[in-house]
Amino acid sequence: MAKTLNVGLIGYGFMGRTHSNAYRKVNNFFDLEYRPVLKTVCGLVEEEAKAFAEKWGYESYGTNWRQVIEDPNIDLVDICVPNNLHAEIAIAAAEAGKAILCEKPLALNVAQGKQMVEAVEKAGVANLVSFNYRRVPAVTLAKILIEEGRLGKIFHYRANFLQDWTISADVPQGGMATWRLDVKAAGSGVTGDLLAHCIDTAMWQNGPITQVNATTETFVKQRKHAETGKVEPVGIDDACIFMCRFENGSLGNFESTRYARGHKALYTFEVNGEHASIAWDLHDLHRLSWFDHRDEGKLRGWRSIHVTDHGGEHPYMDKWWVPGLQIGYEHTFVHQIADFLEGLAEGETVHPTFADALETQKVCEAVLLSAREGRWVDVQSVG
Amino acid sequence: MAKTLNVGLIGYGFMGRTHSNAYRKVNNFFDLEYRPVLKTVCGLVEEEAKAFAEKWGYESYGTNWRQVIEDPNIDLVDICVPNNLHAEIAIAAAEAGKAILCEKPLALNVAQGKQMVEAVEKAGVANLVSFNYRRVPAVTLAKILIEEGRLGKIFHYRANFLQDWTISADVPQGGMATWRLDVKAAGSGVTGDLLAHCIDTAMWQNGPITQVNATTETFVKQRKHAETGKVEPVGIDDACIFMCRFENGSLGNFESTRYARGHKALYTFEVNGEHASIAWDLHDLHRLSWFDHRDEGKLRGWRSIHVTDHGGEHPYMDKWWVPGLQIGYEHTFVHQIADFLEGLAEGETVHPTFADALETQKVCEAVLLSAREGRWVDVQSVG
Amino acid sequence: MAKTLNVGLIGYGFMGRTHSNAYRKVNNFFDLEYRPVLKTVCGLVEEEAKAFAEKWGYESYGTNWRQVIEDPNIDLVDICVPNNLHAEIAIAAAEAGKAILCEKPLALNVAQGKQMVEAVEKAGVANLVSFNYRRVPAVTLAKILIEEGRLGKIFHYRANFLQDWTISADVPQGGMATWRLDVKAAGSGVTGDLLAHCIDTAMWQNGPITQVNATTETFVKQRKHAETGKVEPVGIDDACIFMCRFENGSLGNFESTRYARGHKALYTFEVNGEHASIAWDLHDLHRLSWFDHRDEGKLRGWRSIHVTDHGGEHPYMDKWWVPGLQIGYEHTFVHQIADFLEGLAEGETVHPTFADALETQKVCEAVLLSAREGRWVDVQSVG
Amino acid sequence: MAKTLNVGLIGYGFMGRTHSNAYRKVNNFFDLEYRPVLKTVCGLVEEEAKAFAEKWGYESYGTNWRQVIEDPNIDLVDICVPNNLHAEIAIAAAEAGKAILCEKPLALNVAQGKQMVEAVEKAGVANLVSFNYRRVPAVTLAKILIEEGRLGKIFHYRANFLQDWTISADVPQGGMATWRLDVKAAGSGVTGDLLAHCIDTAMWQNGPITQVNATTETFVKQRKHAETGKVEPVGIDDACIFMCRFENGSLGNFESTRYARGHKALYTFEVNGEHASIAWDLHDLHRLSWFDHRDEGKLRGWRSIHVTDHGGEHPYMDKWWVPGLQIGYEHTFVHQIADFLEGLAEGETVHPTFADALETQKVCEAVLLSAREGRWVDVQSVG
Repeated sequence: MAKTLNVGLIGYGFMGRTHSNAYRKVNNFFDLEYRPVLKTVCGLVEEEAKAFAEKWGYESYGTNWRQVIEDPNIDLVDICVPNNLHAEIAIAAAEAGKAILCEKPLALNVAQGKQMVEAVEKAGVANLVSFNYRRVPAVTLAKILIEEGRLGKIFHYRANFLQDWTISADVPQGGMATWRLDVKAAGSGVTGDLLAHCIDTAMWQNGPITQVNATTETFVKQRKHAETGKVEPVGIDDACIFMCRFENGSLGNFESTRYARGHKALYTFEVNGEHASIAWDLHDLHRLSWFDHRDEGKLRGWRSIHVTDHGGEHPYMDKWWVPGLQIGYEHTFVHQIADFLEGLAEGETVHPTFADALETQKVCEAVLLSAREGRWVDVQSVG
Repeated sequence: MAKTLNVGLIGYGFMGRTHSNAYRKVNNFFDLEYRPVLKTVCGLVEEEAKAFAEKWGYESYGTNWRQVIEDPNIDLVDICVPNNLHAEIAIAAAEAGKAILCEKPLALNVAQGKQMVEAVEKAGVANLVSFNYRRVPAVTLAKILIEEGRLGKIFHYRANFLQDWTISADVPQGGMATWRLDVKAAGSGVTGDLLAHCIDTAMWQNGPITQVNATTETFVKQRKHAETGKVEPVGIDDACIFMCRFENGSLGNFESTRYARGHKALYTFEVNGEHASIAWDLHDLHRLSWFDHRDEGKLRGWRSIHVTDHGGEHPYMDKWWVPGLQIGYEHTFVHQIADFLEGLAEGETVHPTFADALETQKVCEAVLLSAREGRWVDVQSVG
Repeated sequence: MAKTLNVGLIGYGFMGRTHSNAYRKVNNFFDLEYRPVLKTVCGLVEEEAKAFAEKWGYESYGTNWRQVIEDPNIDLVDICVPNNLHAEIAIAAAEAGKAILCEKPLALNVAQGKQMVEAVEKAGVANLVSFNYRRVPAVTLAKILIEEGRLGKIFHYRANFLQDWTISADVPQGGMATWRLDVKAAGSGVTGDLLAHCIDTAMWQNGPITQVNATTETFVKQRKHAETGKVEPVGIDDACIFMCRFENGSLGNFESTRYARGHKALYTFEVNGEHASIAWDLHDLHRLSWFDHRDEGKLRGWRSIHVTDHGGEHPYMDKWWVPGLQIGYEHTFVHQIADFLEGLAEGETVHPTFADALETQKVCEAVLLSAREGRWVDVQSVG
Repeated sequence: MAKTLNVGLIGYGFMGRTHSNAYRKVNNFFDLEYRPVLKTVCGLVEEEAKAFAEKWGYESYGTNWRQVIEDPNIDLVDICVPNNLHAEIAIAAAEAGKAILCEKPLALNVAQGKQMVEAVEKAGVANLVSFNYRRVPAVTLAKILIEEGRLGKIFHYRANFLQDWTISADVPQGGMATWRLDVKAAGSGVTGDLLAHCIDTAMWQNGPITQVNATTETFVKQRKHAETGKVEPVGIDDACIFMCRFENGSLGNFESTRYARGHKALYTFEVNGEHASIAWDLHDLHRLSWFDHRDEGKLRGWRSIHVTDHGGEHPYMDKWWVPGLQIGYEHTFVHQIADFLEGLAEGETVHPTFADALETQKVCEAVLLSAREGRWVDVQSVG
């Protein structure tokens, strides 16, 4: 018999949907001790919270997140609100002894992030940050290959996250749909929203980043506010490039923008090692590119691995369909919940924890500082 | 308030899973009058039916499909059993006045198929055959483009369905896992299992096939039976190639095999018209290739369209995530259920019906006859 | 010191250019005993022959091919004229004791081809047919891999040759530029022009084709003649599909058309064996796709081999530049001449000879017969 | 009648071959007033110079480059020697009134480069630097599209040049084959050898680079000298990343390394503009990727343009074969010579001149300075 785990979801936006879908599906595909129960959803507008609850089968809904945290029936608090609200909610949830799943980035800044880490560690509650792309099977496979030492010494790590949705100067900032352009709600632009994903995956796969040197740009200098209609300066970074050094001696090159025509969510990475290289691309997330210099000379070439099982050897894929049949974006959240529930059952820590995400936050903060000051910044010097 | 639609699922194998997932998800993503309720699942082995019911949330389970059909609470009978059982169950369900969703191919042969069509038409029940690949958004988009006349006169239609899972002579035939190799259960090999998909899509997009000329091969001539262990002749076609004529004057070239190393489920099609061409590939199902000769000369090239929304213009995709984020195989079944439920609500016929699937069955039968006799066969002459 | 080999070129059209370029380059890249000397070029229009001679450095020019053959200084006769002239010229050249390089297809039909083979064999002269695609390094590599047995038993061979240049009904037939549409000059349409290449490569790689079953179509039924302006029925095949059996038990599927929008010269083939598969595509001729089932399971994938050297292991490529730098279409003719010259020096037969090309001619003729009669045809029964 | 242009080639290494091939082919394909004559080749080792002269048809050979320059019969001096010899030879050639073609990069440093520019400008001789990749048809097409304003405002320019040939610590430095690893001969590592190409193309397409911020790495710190066998510190950069600003406000991101497994000569660039984006890749140099946001929404996608003619609209391609048939690496040098000869005939300046290449040299020098000092450097402040 499965143990129930009562979920309180805070935030019914895009991420609220991805998480709700994951809770509903996870036990159909994974054999787990825990079964999540969609207990309550809470958000800004009551009518919308109600509609969301009906659509997804939440037992109740509300508009006050503190009630969720104070509810003794809630086991897991799931934070899907804009970045500026993460810290307060997470700290309260930790103090209330709840397990916490928090959307990324961890916080607005390193200072907040440190408080959050302290809170969950003091409370001893399970905590996980939703850097979901780690759990694309191809990305997890890349991690495994690196960990197995198959690349040998690593020389280069390269990652991009390219979008094109803010090129028009008519896109507003602020409000429910475009809070990501509002520096007060988001903390930063592409650095916290997109590069944070790249950094999380990179450090997981290739170890700590020690130094960064960045530049940022805001192409559209002022935008209307979505709610007030007032034209205001734009405070976020539209684009960010940074070079970095990893602790293992490899060089990093990262870039993100929302001004790259033709790319909707082109998160790519490539790792070059002594013996082999790996590349991946979110637009075809079910494939991993692999080049092995140890292959016979005349037959060497980049392999396009269709990561859809191969005898159960592809991470997570034995839970889904049959070889050749691809999964999509939403499955990363199911994997995340499955791992989190398994960790709860086993009493084991599941990553990335708040503490892991704080390291990513430090890199982001160092990147923004470097861009402002035009110099190399030691990652551990910030915050 | 949603109207409930009580589902009785017959067969808890691979297709039972894809359909159950679709019933569970469809209302989370589509706004529909009907809400399916997972009432009962029925299958061969009681323990397995029970486990399946628990995993997917069916209210009850059983081993006798007649009980499902006799149950007045069941609104929709969903047939996910081997091909040799389709006719009997579907006819009984029709007589009991149930709506029917039936896995493909429709039947073992045209004779059975005709009886099934008669039964549903006489009973006036809603009926749909699960040629799910029609509802890959990229495939639906291809259909729309053809229907809009963008290709002009069509010259060529080409489709392949390539797999590699039966190359080893140690793969058995018969039993629960390998009934597709048993001619008694499956009726045919790749023709009914794989080419039926290609034919369904092709006739939907390009109109009726009038004549066929085929060849088939059985590379492994005998295999052990999965249950008895007895070595027996193999009765199915391992591979099939056929040339054909469409009513609109275009030439068709179709091929399927389970002996193509490197391909797990490589269903591809390409259509060449006077003005434009289209190509698609199940291994990257979220993309459509499009070439338009009317593009400016120096900029002409095959476009790889990432069919993931673009302002709501990509079929079904506005229901899912945001542009750039791909969906997968299982979503085709959600789309199928969504359309079927919408048809029920509107009182409109949803395709492919049993009658549509009978046309595909005729082509399959003509193909097998042609292969046996080494000659061109008129499709409408069979059955 | 290099021995000179005096070349007499008959035909200064497109193929005359590819061959002339090859003669001029071959000694710059290959170490050979023979050095071709561009002695004379002969063609229909004197002014054009003169201009061609100047452009390419031929010592003389003329309009009478018999003079080339009668010239005792000519060692090699190179036949680059329309198909209907191959037989007469080649037989005369053989009788005059010249080495012969003849453009493909060998002849208008098998009857002519047999006479040509008899002539060269009786005269004992070196003879080669310009099926140049054999000598794309990636295609040669494919041949080597098959010959090494790396694919194991072969199940499938698939080839297409798709173009789009005759879709417009305004393209004329006949004349210098469009003789390929004139059945009297060309003998057939895509079968002899394009499928002949596919068949040559296929039989070289996979052994004899024993039986064929084909269909052809002429989409545009009448065209103006390029010279007379008279509208006449079109006698060639615009498109051809055929299924076949190879002697080794594998199935073949071939298709060619000039009505496939988006494809200029898309010659592709794919071979599926027990252990591995190979695919290739003329539009990216410097790459070979390779899938090896013996690769470690989780890392299996199609490799895209950039066939540009890899330590000298890629055929012909050590003669050109450095790894990573691609060659193009014209190099296949250089390789052909290099091999032919080396064969002359060593006294060894270089393939495809007239006799090899006659086998291809038989398949073409069987294909056309099958298409006319709508039945399987034994290849060795024709001619 | 063609005017002869007598060529004196200095250096018979890899670049000597590419240039010689271009001289030999150019008049066969391009209609030009000038016809180059291979007058003399000069290099370090007499036997090798002699063999080279025989292979390529040079009338004479020698080992003293001053003799070439003093020879009144020589019209064009072609400099294909290591970078440290460019300045002295080029200045002498200019003073002797010769036209000059010089391999890239222009010089060891900006100081040398300035002297070279002064010399050719004072002498008023035609001068061209061999940044050959500008003349890949797809790259030229990209330039045309940008110049036509089709991209609108440009936001991003990204370029990589990735190789893998120096990963092994056993590769020596210095000598004839590996002078590129010797800082005294090469001046720098990947910056001058590879990034110089990227910078030349980038500034040609997107205008001046004003500021750079770079980092470099030398992974293998010491290597044996190829001739002396002595182990010595490595003075070149194995890898270099730089961020930059263009005068037009766009951001640049450049990276080069010789430590990227799987890449032999992967020069890629991507340009993102307001309306459209372009991408290109040297490993498939005959293709250009094009995305146009102004395409109809549901049909938007990256086009892969096969740059092989399309009615004569693809730069240079009408000179070669027919649509669909690709050219390769060596053709860029033929185009370069064709343009240079046409410029000589017309009395027009052909780019990149020494002055253009000096601008690239400045960026390279600023990059190396920035890497040493860890700060942003103004390009115009160096030298």
